[in-house]
This record gives sequence, structure tokens and C-alpha cells, in this order.
Amino acid sequence: MSSTLVLVHGFWHGSWCWSEVILRVVAAGRLAVAVDMVGHGLYARRPRWFSAQSYDPGAVGTELSPVGDVSLDDAAGLLTAQIKWIGGGGPVTVVAHSAAGPVLTRVAQRTPELVAHAVYLSAYMPSSGVPAVAYTRMPEAADDHVAPLLQGDPARIGALRLDFATDDAAYRRRLHEAFYGDVDSVLADAATGLLTPDGPLGVMLGTTDLTHDGWGSVRRTYLTCARDMAIRPALQARFIAEADAAFPGNPTSVVALDASHSPFLSMPDVVADILTAIG
Amino acid sequence: MSSTLVLVHGFWHGSWCWSEVILRVVAAGRLAVAVDMVGHGLYARRPRWFSAQSYDPGAVGTELSPVGDVSLDDAAGLLTAQIKWIGGGGPVTVVAHSAAGPVLTRVAQRTPELVAHAVYLSAYMPSSGVPAVAYTRMPEAADDHVAPLLQGDPARIGALRLDFATDDAAYRRRLHEAFYGDVDSVLADAATGLLTPDGPLGVMLGTTDLTHDGWGSVRRTYLTCARDMAIRPALQARFIAEADAAFPGNPTSVVALDASHSPFLSMPDVVADILTAIG
Repeated sequence: MSSTLVLVHGFWHGSWCWSEVILRVVAAGRLAVAVDMVGHGLYARRPRWFSAQSYDPGAVGTELSPVGDVSLDDAAGLLTAQIKWIGGGGPVTVVAHSAAGPVLTRVAQRTPELVAHAVYLSAYMPSSGVPAVAYTRMPEAADDHVAPLLQGDPARIGALRLDFATDDAAYRRRLHEAFYGDVDSVLADAATGLLTPDGPLGVMLGTTDLTHDGWGSVRRTYLTCARDMAIRPALQARFIAEADAAFPGNPTSVVALDASHSPFLSMPDVVADILTAIG
Repeated sequence: MSSTLVLVHGFWHGSWCWSEVILRVVAAGRLAVAVDMVGHGLYARRPRWFSAQSYDPGAVGTELSPVGDVSLDDAAGLLTAQIKWIGGGGPVTVVAHSAAGPVLTRVAQRTPELVAHAVYLSAYMPSSGVPAVAYTRMPEAADDHVAPLLQGDPARIGALRLDFATDDAAYRRRLHEAFYGDVDSVLADAATGLLTPDGPLGVMLGTTDLTHDGWGSVRRTYLTCARDMAIRPALQARFIAEADAAFPGNPTSVVALDASHSPFLSMPDVVADILTAIG
């Protein structure tokens, strides 16, 4: 039987975002489970302003994040524990979306024997020693639609913060365009209601030194999203090019999707078919 | 291989509430998937007051629910489609929590060939022709801790509405006690942040006529929760007694948990062990 699939959401999301994909993968007889990243889902801690009855626009940009102390080590530690639990010590196939990319990279480098296949779905796939956050400042990220929506100074509040509580129709429309451009609007609204505002900056600041025996030895696939406004196609291409230059003996398998940043919502059937076929 | 497990959350929750259980079930090699009930999770529609920046206590009790048009037929229709998809037309084991009970009952009555085993986790398991809502008014539900927290007139707004947006510390404490009495408080806060306010009243109003060839023919298990403040132990016992009186040839298997209404959060290991062993 093929290895179990472990699906890891990106910042602001939770295990819930994979439910339509998992239904289809399990239908094909493949074991699959979606887990929560540290600081998200059942591990979320929300800033006070987000739940306060009287909305304080000042606090949105200044309140220190309750997940400001979360590091890449913490995120990788939790994912490693989840993988060990799910796989019973044997290898699993890990699918990482967006900011889960550096977490998967760290885990695959430290414990390559636990990762049968590393699958990046429009995810940060940073080079050796480079923090994921550095890629947000590169030319390939110049027209990223998420950065202009961030609230406060990430370095000060400790998080990449989005304001999912705002009534500002223009801001909400831009959120929709950044993440869910090809997603049905009712579904996008339902998903937006489940998002948590703070992505721990520490996950994006951490670096991992990559070796041939570590991450370089793990089979990897990158699912590109051609209409992604969060991690732009040029940046996705850069991740693949850098990885293949560093580890030419283990090139990236690339699967192209004509999707926004969230194909798990806009085309779960396509994503499920691809993942089910991955070894 | 054992039948696939399909896990259905109760009112206000979503597929996300099962993630700690599923991780453990999949670790044991059992196919399992959590689905969203109609009006919840990726199918949720939230009332305006819930997301408005300026909290309007008047609207909480009066705004008509966006899921006020959802019926038990709708809920059963979606679950049937999910089961057919997941099981490929073959039978699956369905685990229903709380208000998912009447949905499972309807599906098992209409299409018993799709349900290998009906598992009720402290769920409404109504008798033939009795709406689930009737049980909330019975003596066995007299000290139910949820009813006093409901906002507005359910018959008028079309939903069992809870105010997860309130800053009222006493109300929030009572919510915690009603649902998560034995759940770690940080975890309970994370879960509360994912709840949606409106449970569609229609699901509780629908009735299903039960027959020996239908629901009465399906193997069933009831997981009781001794410290449940939402569906009280006396009410759980009544469901089991009524079912066994109506279908004495197919008695309920009972498994007792010393848990609150949410053992999927407070004791996921115990719940996973029980579900993994269920045929």
C-alpha cells in the first residue's frame, strides 16, 4: 500500500481546509490525514483584538502576537511528532502548503527517513540557510497580493497578521483575491470565517542547512499554481530552480495547476487525483 | 480491511474537531475522514452580527439565521452524497456526534445498505417519528446546560444560536462548562474560536419513520458520556432504552466514557481506540 498522506495547511488556515480533498483521497483507498500547524487550528491562540466586541483598529497593528514566541523549531517539532505518530516510525508522504514549506524542509532535512516524499503545494521551499521571509522581498515576489494586506510591523508584533475581522469591504475583497481568486464566493466566505489572524513570524525566520544526505536525498514534487497571487508563479519557479541547482541528482517533479493559492478549495478533485497518484 | 470511518460533528463544530482522533485512527491503518455537516465548516453561513465590527446585542437575538432554511432532508442529502463518494457505493461506518445523530438516523433508515455500523457519540438518537428537538424538553434534559445559553427564539430565527462573539466572561465560562468541561482551557479556547453560531433548527425538527428493514436493521453502538452537560446521561440512556424497546432483536452496543460532551478533544486516544476497534 502507498505511504500515508499527511497534509499540512499554510498560515492562517487549519486542518479544515483539506476536508474536500481528503474525502476524495480516502475514497480512492489511500490513508490520509490533515494536521494542524503549531499556532493554528486546535493549537491556535488568537490576539485579543480579534475577538473583542469593540473593534480597535489601533490594536490590530500593535498588539503583540500570542504566537510571537513560536519558532521554526517548534513547528518542526510538532510536525515530526505528528508524522511519527501517524506513520508509526515509518515514512509518510507530507504535503505542505504555503508557509508549511519551510516546516516540511526542516523535518525532511533532520529526519529524511520519516519522509517518503516531500510535496510542496505552492509552498515556500527555501534554499540552504535562507529564511523563507527573504523570498518575500525578492523581485519574483514584487506583485504578491498578501504583503500589502499585512497589519502592523511583523518584526515587532511577531506575526504575519491579517485582519479577518474587518468590515472594510475593499480589504475583504483583496483578501479574497489574494487567496481565493478562483474559489466560489460562498465557500470563500465560509473559509475566511475559519482563518486565524496571526501566522508566527518565527516559522518564516528560521533557516535550515540542507545536505545531500538530508533534504537533498528526499524525493520531492512541487505543485505550481499559475494564478497564485500569494506566492507568485515566478517565485515558485525560483524555488524549483534553486533546489535543482543545489541537488541536480534529485530533480524536482513538477505538476502544474491552473489555480489560485487555494486549489484544495477550488479544484479538490484535481488535487486529490494528483495526491492519490503520488507514491 | 474494516469499513471506512466517516466522522460527523455536531452543531456549531466542523470537521476540524476530529483532527486529534483521526490522526490516531489513521496511525492504526484505518481509513477515516471527517466531513462537514450542512451549514457548518466549509458549508457555513454566518449571521451578520457575528462578524460585524460593532457588536449589536439586539441583533444576536433577532437576526434571521442564514441557515434557517436548512432541513433534515438537506443535511441527510449531503451526508448521503459524502458517504457514497467516500465508500464508492459500499457501506461505511458513520460516527455521529450530538445533533448529527438525527442526520445519521435518517440516512441509515433511507439507505441502510450504505451504513455498515451507526455509531452515536452522545448524540440525539430519536425514536420513530419524534423530532430531536422534542427530547430537549423532556425531563431527562431538565438540567441541560446549553438551553439557557441559546440566543433568540429558535422558531423565529430558524437556528439554535449561541453567542461565541460575546465578551461576557460568565457566558463564556458557561459555554466552556456546557461543551468542554474536561478539556484543557487553551485547547477549548482554540476550538471555541472555530465554532459557528447557528445550528439549523430544521435538523432538529425533522422526523424519520423507523422500520425493521431500515434503521432497525443497521448495527448500532452508542458511546455514552457520563459528564456530559449538553446531552445529559439520563437522556442518553433514554435514547438507548427507546431504541432497544423498538428493535429488541438488534440491541444497542454501549460503550461508556467518563467524559464531557467533547471526548474527541479531551480524550482523543480513548475515542480513537474505540473507533478503530469498531467493525
